[in-house]
Amino acid sequence: MASSTEEVAAKSISPYGIARSTISEQPLSAEELRKTDAYFRASMYLCLGMLYLRKNPLLTTPLTTSDLKARLLGHWGSDAGQSFTWIHFNRLIKKYDLNALFISGPGHGAPAVLSNSYLEGVYSEVYPDITRNEEGMRRFFRQFSFPGGIGSHCTPETPGSVHEGGELGYSISHAFGTVFDNPDLISLTVVGDGEAETGPLATSWHSTKFLNPITDGAVLPVLHLNGYKINNPTILARISHRELEALFVGYGWTPYFVEGSDLESMHQAMASTLEHCVMEIQKYQKQARDSGKAFRPFWPMIILRSPKGWTAPRKVDGKLLEGYWRAHQIPIPDVATNPAHLKVLEDWMKSYKPEEIFDKEGQLIKELAELSPEGTARMSANPVGNGGVLRKALNIPDFRKYALLKIEPGVSLLPSMSNMALFLKDVVAQNMTNFRVFGPDETESNKLGGIYGAGKKVWMGEYFEEDEDGGNLAFEGRVMEMLSEHTCEGWLEGYLLSGRHGLLNSYEPFIHVIDSMVNQHCKWIEKCLEVSWREKVSSLNILLTATVWRQDHNGFTHQDPGFLDVVANKSPDIVRIYLPPDGNCLLSVTDHCLKSVNYVNVIVADKQDHIQFLDMEAAIEHCSKGVGIWDFASTDQGSEPDVVMASCGDVPTHESLAATALLREHIPSLRIRFVNVVDLFKLIAEVDHPHGMSDAQYTSIFTSDKPIIFNFHSYPFLVHRLTYKRPGQTNIHVRGYNEKGNIDTPLELAIRNKTDRYSLAMDVIDRVPGLKVKEAGVRELLLNEQTRMKNYAFEEGIDPQEIRDWTWPSEKSA
Amino acid sequence: MASSTEEVAAKSISPYGIARSTISEQPLSAEELRKTDAYFRASMYLCLGMLYLRKNPLLTTPLTTSDLKARLLGHWGSDAGQSFTWIHFNRLIKKYDLNALFISGPGHGAPAVLSNSYLEGVYSEVYPDITRNEEGMRRFFRQFSFPGGIGSHCTPETPGSVHEGGELGYSISHAFGTVFDNPDLISLTVVGDGEAETGPLATSWHSTKFLNPITDGAVLPVLHLNGYKINNPTILARISHRELEALFVGYGWTPYFVEGSDLESMHQAMASTLEHCVMEIQKYQKQARDSGKAFRPFWPMIILRSPKGWTAPRKVDGKLLEGYWRAHQIPIPDVATNPAHLKVLEDWMKSYKPEEIFDKEGQLIKELAELSPEGTARMSANPVGNGGVLRKALNIPDFRKYALLKIEPGVSLLPSMSNMALFLKDVVAQNMTNFRVFGPDETESNKLGGIYGAGKKVWMGEYFEEDEDGGNLAFEGRVMEMLSEHTCEGWLEGYLLSGRHGLLNSYEPFIHVIDSMVNQHCKWIEKCLEVSWREKVSSLNILLTATVWRQDHNGFTHQDPGFLDVVANKSPDIVRIYLPPDGNCLLSVTDHCLKSVNYVNVIVADKQDHIQFLDMEAAIEHCSKGVGIWDFASTDQGSEPDVVMASCGDVPTHESLAATALLREHIPSLRIRFVNVVDLFKLIAEVDHPHGMSDAQYTSIFTSDKPIIFNFHSYPFLVHRLTYKRPGQTNIHVRGYNEKGNIDTPLELAIRNKTDRYSLAMDVIDRVPGLKVKEAGVRELLLNEQTRMKNYAFEEGIDPQEIRDWTWPSEKSA
Repeated sequence: MASSTEEVAAKSISPYGIARSTISEQPLSAEELRKTDAYFRASMYLCLGMLYLRKNPLLTTPLTTSDLKARLLGHWGSDAGQSFTWIHFNRLIKKYDLNALFISGPGHGAPAVLSNSYLEGVYSEVYPDITRNEEGMRRFFRQFSFPGGIGSHCTPETPGSVHEGGELGYSISHAFGTVFDNPDLISLTVVGDGEAETGPLATSWHSTKFLNPITDGAVLPVLHLNGYKINNPTILARISHRELEALFVGYGWTPYFVEGSDLESMHQAMASTLEHCVMEIQKYQKQARDSGKAFRPFWPMIILRSPKGWTAPRKVDGKLLEGYWRAHQIPIPDVATNPAHLKVLEDWMKSYKPEEIFDKEGQLIKELAELSPEGTARMSANPVGNGGVLRKALNIPDFRKYALLKIEPGVSLLPSMSNMALFLKDVVAQNMTNFRVFGPDETESNKLGGIYGAGKKVWMGEYFEEDEDGGNLAFEGRVMEMLSEHTCEGWLEGYLLSGRHGLLNSYEPFIHVIDSMVNQHCKWIEKCLEVSWREKVSSLNILLTATVWRQDHNGFTHQDPGFLDVVANKSPDIVRIYLPPDGNCLLSVTDHCLKSVNYVNVIVADKQDHIQFLDMEAAIEHCSKGVGIWDFASTDQGSEPDVVMASCGDVPTHESLAATALLREHIPSLRIRFVNVVDLFKLIAEVDHPHGMSDAQYTSIFTSDKPIIFNFHSYPFLVHRLTYKRPGQTNIHVRGYNEKGNIDTPLELAIRNKTDRYSLAMDVIDRVPGLKVKEAGVRELLLNEQTRMKNYAFEEGIDPQEIRDWTWPSEKSA
Repeated sequence: MASSTEEVAAKSISPYGIARSTISEQPLSAEELRKTDAYFRASMYLCLGMLYLRKNPLLTTPLTTSDLKARLLGHWGSDAGQSFTWIHFNRLIKKYDLNALFISGPGHGAPAVLSNSYLEGVYSEVYPDITRNEEGMRRFFRQFSFPGGIGSHCTPETPGSVHEGGELGYSISHAFGTVFDNPDLISLTVVGDGEAETGPLATSWHSTKFLNPITDGAVLPVLHLNGYKINNPTILARISHRELEALFVGYGWTPYFVEGSDLESMHQAMASTLEHCVMEIQKYQKQARDSGKAFRPFWPMIILRSPKGWTAPRKVDGKLLEGYWRAHQIPIPDVATNPAHLKVLEDWMKSYKPEEIFDKEGQLIKELAELSPEGTARMSANPVGNGGVLRKALNIPDFRKYALLKIEPGVSLLPSMSNMALFLKDVVAQNMTNFRVFGPDETESNKLGGIYGAGKKVWMGEYFEEDEDGGNLAFEGRVMEMLSEHTCEGWLEGYLLSGRHGLLNSYEPFIHVIDSMVNQHCKWIEKCLEVSWREKVSSLNILLTATVWRQDHNGFTHQDPGFLDVVANKSPDIVRIYLPPDGNCLLSVTDHCLKSVNYVNVIVADKQDHIQFLDMEAAIEHCSKGVGIWDFASTDQGSEPDVVMASCGDVPTHESLAATALLREHIPSLRIRFVNVVDLFKLIAEVDHPHGMSDAQYTSIFTSDKPIIFNFHSYPFLVHRLTYKRPGQTNIHVRGYNEKGNIDTPLELAIRNKTDRYSLAMDVIDRVPGLKVKEAGVRELLLNEQTRMKNYAFEEGIDPQEIRDWTWPSEKSA
């Protein structure tokens, strides 16, 4: 491969002509070929019908404008290629008794998936009003991209779908998620060449370095070189064959090409190539499973180059349609106003010969209906596509066993996160094929390395001798680490949607990398609630650590707690946010999240050694309530407080408590109520979130008229938006991260954002009526002390010991 | 390349040993080799010093714990490879008089960049207190990763840096951004093999399909196969040579390998290979420029495989250090408490022979200082690295020329966006080497295709005959379209940071894909404000269209206006959000944004034909104020209103106005004040944002005691968080997107979220004291009408005409 001899990129090739393919056998008999093509025509006819018709589905009378939908919506471009792939895989499912799932990357090509689901009968089983006759077909057409109907992506309403594809880029990572620990499954995954340009998709090809041929199934990608996006050519369709082949060899695959437009030869090429790929997959799996030795083969994949909008007219009025970007959406948009174009449409639809493929009642004729597999072997009926039905509850050890013991509130200094790793280790150990931990190269850094004791990191790349020295790599691991939040998240989503359990851990600042993926997952599971046959899947659990308040040393780029704002915009039916203040609360919250279904749970916790507040009993009670008054830190017993010190988040709680101690010392007469919030949505009204409190509950904790000094983990605005309706909301004074940071110590970072103990104590003095004048001396003392500490930190490069090792004055010392 | 003969992935190779390289010449004389190695040792010495020392920088006395920083922070892992690359490029800059910029992908390797900047004298020129002597070196060491000092990434404080790298994945797209329209520039870009696993980086290699060898410069990537991330091996270091080479050929590059650890042979290999690459670049550029024919060569790149933490001890206490992940951060962390390790460190530092490379005063000896280029030829002094100094103001036509004319407020129906395209077309035409438009395959869909009249889409992939049929592709285009928001955004950032201008257009829902990139850019430009020598750069302008309210047909996945929440969390010094209600306001706002510096401007506007409200005069006045009362729609002239109808966003304004018309019709006595907000940050207090209003200004518009029915484009919470402090905030009733959507018509989508005219009018009745009882009949009538319209939409699949084509009752018809 001496590249210097070929300096200028060579030519690509046309999608037109007789099939050109790597495998050139002719596996289909003339009869099989005839039927396969008829089945394909049936699917294409249905796709077009979905785009255009509200009536007259079989075209039993001449097509008129009154048969058309008033608003034409939907996508034609990738339908043919996707349906072509589906239909040819049907033959192999039957021949080899395969367990297969179809993942549609170019999500806008839902008609391909829907038409096949309808043809194989699943659609009518799932939606009994969409019958397999003329009236059912009419309804099937009408509902598509129609208000109250279904979308033009593979939405949750689509049988067999775990991947909507509205936002592009995740088909391959989702597919791998479905096959991990599913050794018999093949996920046939069509990847659009538009989608293939996205970053998340481009790196997800490397997923093969994490797939074990013994314990996992296989992904069979079909890269669909359709040639065009909405208005542009695609990159991969406009590079040389040499580059294209090299790229996928480089990604670790064996690419097989199927290219052309001639139907007869394309059918033979696709049939033989798909079959060859299935044989390859089974060969590698057998080799590994028989020998017990896992290895990483160059897994097969297909590059299918066919015209965009294949089987449409090549030109309309002299303008290119098939094989061009104009075929992307509605291929002929003006049929309602242009009678000539209406005729073009009618002729086109009739070219599929509906009368030969559907009987008078509108049912697919028997000899074609027999081509599809049966029962759950039909790809649209595979239970993996409705993973909740396969979901088995986790076998979770009692989290109380892992309690941090002998807690002296505010005094004990213990590692919350590495303790939690012990719990997670046993969750892994007790669910060795049902639970995985995902993270972008940060699991050890996040103090969760203890998990490796039960399941190491999956690694199918090459091994070096040095890996023996603490590498924690294994062919059969349970922790998935790749430096791509996108791929980790995609794997986890695929793993959950196919009925399993998992947890993603990440540095807090960089979880924004997958804002949009989490958004889309929220939307998916919310919409599933409206689809009666969808069983609930395990929650998506996101553990955020290396949080903003301990990113002082990494600086400004590593300080962003705003993911909570993104999540809080999603439906209250779906999202949960927990900020456990200490180790036992972290255990309790995590246990709760692991057992839950259909949520996106976000847990935010510091990974460093941390001051502890609650023993396990108290932690469970506190977490069950979600918010509570901490008596040990309060001085308002039996009376109204002068001020409420509230906190949410472990580091902010530490500082709030320290501020409370300062006030107790300097203003002993002040009645302070100390409140901690674990469950963020407790703050919101009960009508706005299932976890919300009533105003009565809220005021019984926060009062309706006392100043509240609220120290918050994230941007302070989030608390305001949750509480803006509350009685006494004007008394809430929220401190949090205000986008002020640089290379700091923790103290200096806190001071910049006014979340440090001194600032908080001064806030109290400023806010409690009368105190500012009366306690001006204390305020000055606090300010001086703050300055002294800050100067020390500035000089030494570390926080002073009395800040770092501060604990609540215990009874003895008090 | 018959892959079937080689089915199982072959072995990778070790980073150790004598250099193995594609180019095996020996360009360095013994003398040059000796000096180059000494310079490299100088750099390595400085890197280690930064990590460890606060005193005794030249180790003139034995190393003691008092010389150490109290808290050891920073990264060693990639320093050697990056510095090695820098130093060898210095030779070529001098030899060939190159204009070169260095981009450090593994951002955590800032010591490599900082040490070279210090060695070539730039650091002391920029920061005069960091002198080139012992005391300056001491300060240089101490400030690193030290409070009040500088970070361990290439932060804005780093001379010559346009790429911080705290969040990984953008080095290549940033690099391409710097060389577009910079034909003489070579951006030497080190890509970490950790970074290379991210999605954004993985697809950005395809940027070559958008680089014109005549009008653009070149990117020379050095993929640094360091072998390890924080705790894991990297994928690219653990695949076979065949895969690695194929991958980059597939991406369209010519990879040259430099692999090994032996310094002498590695110096020769790197010197010869870098030189060969520069020759290749110049050859291709000459060929294209001499012939006037652009083409896409297989541009050269280097794969540098060297041990992680190269030149560190291979083992410490029997545990691997050099060549393993333990070398990632501080290589020996316990030197303060382990005297033996302190000695290891001292011996290691002395192995670089500081006494041979620095003179007694601590200055780099003359024969080494002469190795670096001079003046702005030094990579850390290249003005491109401080693009603001190169920035020329745009030559912008008067936007008033493009005004939509003869506006009858609330009646004229005109295309705001395609009209704006005419303005942008002329901006392109008048700034043909200084302004580009970026978008992920959506420019035409976003009705901005008019821009192609001045500058087509850049395309260096292959051309097909069919491109003649409206393809709008060109070698020398001005619009950049790749289906990767990450790459488009990265290119634009690089283009701006190197002193040019641009605009990104995107569908609103999928802008979340680059949340984290925009976050990081905000942080970069905010921090630049604190760096006195940084000149301001053009603003990052993001135009969002295909907005939530017109994504009814695409469904739930395409409905997410939450990007505004992400942006609103950033510093008020940086972020601006505009929601122009109509076409003339869109022009005015865009003109303002294009002229601004150092902001992230977000503009949200509908792309469809839209009802117009203001003629150009009025639009300019309205946009200058940012918020205003619209008299034509108000009925409270000269008196206090009963209710304030407020709106923000074009579609919401349309519905608010329609609600106002309904109320005028049915409750003519009601005094309504109609308020529109263009500049979102007007809502916030003046102390919290430079655009904020005083409470007096606010209440003069919104009143302090009247109900406000606020129809908002995005999630309603955002308005609450901006106004929670305002007098009368409890009277603000905000409607907006509430995460309710499916396949709908626009009307049905609005009804689901209660932002439609009927819901808003009923809100008024419910909120104005006394009205609910008094106007119960009107309320019922509105409800019935809403139901009737909804049913029509449901039945027909389109909104009824009276909704779609609704306009404000004009004087004549009223």
